[in-house]
Amino acid sequence: MKVALIGLGSVGRGVATMLAKKDLGLTITGIADSKSGLIEDKGINITKVLANKKKTGMCGDSRITAIDVIKKADYDALIEVTPTNALSGEPATGYIRTALNRKKHVVTSNKGPVALSYKELRALALKKGVAFRYEATVAGAIPIMHVLEHGLAGNEILAIYGVLNGTCNFILTRMADEGLTYEQALMEAREMGYAEADPTYDVQGIDAAIKLVILANTIWGNGVKLADVDRTGIDLLTADALRLAEEEGCTIRLIAEAIPRKKLIRVSPRIIEKTHPLVVEGTLNALTLETDMAKEITLIGRGAGSIETASAIIGDLLFIRDCHVQRP
Amino acid sequence: MKVALIGLGSVGRGVATMLAKKDLGLTITGIADSKSGLIEDKGINITKVLANKKKTGMCGDSRITAIDVIKKADYDALIEVTPTNALSGEPATGYIRTALNRKKHVVTSNKGPVALSYKELRALALKKGVAFRYEATVAGAIPIMHVLEHGLAGNEILAIYGVLNGTCNFILTRMADEGLTYEQALMEAREMGYAEADPTYDVQGIDAAIKLVILANTIWGNGVKLADVDRTGIDLLTADALRLAEEEGCTIRLIAEAIPRKKLIRVSPRIIEKTHPLVVEGTLNALTLETDMAKEITLIGRGAGSIETASAIIGDLLFIRDCHVQRP
Repeated sequence: MKVALIGLGSVGRGVATMLAKKDLGLTITGIADSKSGLIEDKGINITKVLANKKKTGMCGDSRITAIDVIKKADYDALIEVTPTNALSGEPATGYIRTALNRKKHVVTSNKGPVALSYKELRALALKKGVAFRYEATVAGAIPIMHVLEHGLAGNEILAIYGVLNGTCNFILTRMADEGLTYEQALMEAREMGYAEADPTYDVQGIDAAIKLVILANTIWGNGVKLADVDRTGIDLLTADALRLAEEEGCTIRLIAEAIPRKKLIRVSPRIIEKTHPLVVEGTLNALTLETDMAKEITLIGRGAGSIETASAIIGDLLFIRDCHVQRP
Repeated sequence: MKVALIGLGSVGRGVATMLAKKDLGLTITGIADSKSGLIEDKGINITKVLANKKKTGMCGDSRITAIDVIKKADYDALIEVTPTNALSGEPATGYIRTALNRKKHVVTSNKGPVALSYKELRALALKKGVAFRYEATVAGAIPIMHVLEHGLAGNEILAIYGVLNGTCNFILTRMADEGLTYEQALMEAREMGYAEADPTYDVQGIDAAIKLVILANTIWGNGVKLADVDRTGIDLLTADALRLAEEEGCTIRLIAEAIPRKKLIRVSPRIIEKTHPLVVEGTLNALTLETDMAKEITLIGRGAGSIETASAIIGDLLFIRDCHVQRP
């Protein structure tokens, strides 16, 4: 199967490296970063391109843009891994729309298009008889979409609960374990590279809320939007609150939850028993699905990372290669 | 899709009840218990059959056997859910072989055939262009096989660690939480219906070892057998050992583990940190996969139960219906 790779940041480089290393029968015929592009119908030498990118900051020819690659390269599936723009979803949404219109499968790690334009992109993919997959957008390496789509097929999903932001979970773990204040723990998260200079997006629960929107739309097709999420961050949490929870055998985690029967969709710090499967340490992510037949299923894993995210993308690509069946 | 259901114990009744309740497009055209059978090409009235079974102990005509149903009914997939015989694998293996030879897909919850005859049955299914699926044999409702097959496709599985026997986990949880002796906790497990009169199969780790064999064969195709598993049960564990572990922030769990790079395949009580995701409470099951790209992925859920197991079987059936692609 031939693939085109758009985006060569941390995730894109992870995907490219793994495709070059593993013999999965996936050939990259088009590649683009924000400054350049490369089209080679017989397959691109990834090792050479990555070395070039490291040296010059470009992966190919500056006259070739991402949209050129998407429109002209010969590929079966587009891998869209440009940075998330949570407000506009662009340019990723345009890229994805263009590829779907060419009857190309799309695999993305980009939360913007899925959170903002899920219904439109899914309908377009269905109409064109191709796949639109986005396992990597939620909870990194945890194969939550595959589990929802296949493992638990036939189950009604009654509720979801998730620890979907590793930065917040790291901060809360450090506050609980070491008695740090929020500010101290945030500083440590910054030093470790887990938090950005402006941590708003993470600590105010926006990132977790976007992932919750993606999950809710996938499961219930209910068209919820980011603005529908009742959202409280962890930035006002005191060390005292955590100490009190600990005294009761509990702790505090930033929980994203959606419970249709209660009309509830919320991201907020919750007191939770320490023995609950959702209570994971450090930057881990976790998800509990409440279902009618399987009852509670919890998945725990890494929520971020270059190679971890590549795992989710490659899982989607191999599913398309091996199992995509065109529906009427 | 038409299905034939062989076995009407707890799991079979769970499957039948769910198929009758949910409109999944799966029609039962053949059914059999150990004493009787029923074939109706246009679809069996399950509610009537289950009521009949409850009243008379039989689901159909005593002149019709399970093998009659398997040989003569008009179906696409066989659901084989007769009781496990871990020594001979029969009569289930014969049932499965007969269905595969008729080019019928097979879905089973029966550990015997998969642990004893995996290689043969898988090769036969491949040859006949049909699916042989057995999600329900390991860890009940946890969709571990789907995750291995699709979610983590492309990953190399480096090791697996599992809490695969709910009875043992319940006993160990009670010993740790309440300071009970092994004998006291076992008695409680019996009273709750979690342990059988003869608990050997569970407490000596045989059940967990069989599931480990199924996992290892599925992942690595390495042909390991039950006799290859280095096995220690929990029946000699003292309350003191658990108390000492607890003092160090740890506990003891019966862990099934396979680590090819260390040539290790073992079921034994292990001391494990209480914060480790594998440390689950009561009768829960848990599995951690160590992989090259996704790193560690843990799944937690119910390891047994009529409807929980039906969830796994129905997941397999829907996968066959929606995604089975005949390979050359």
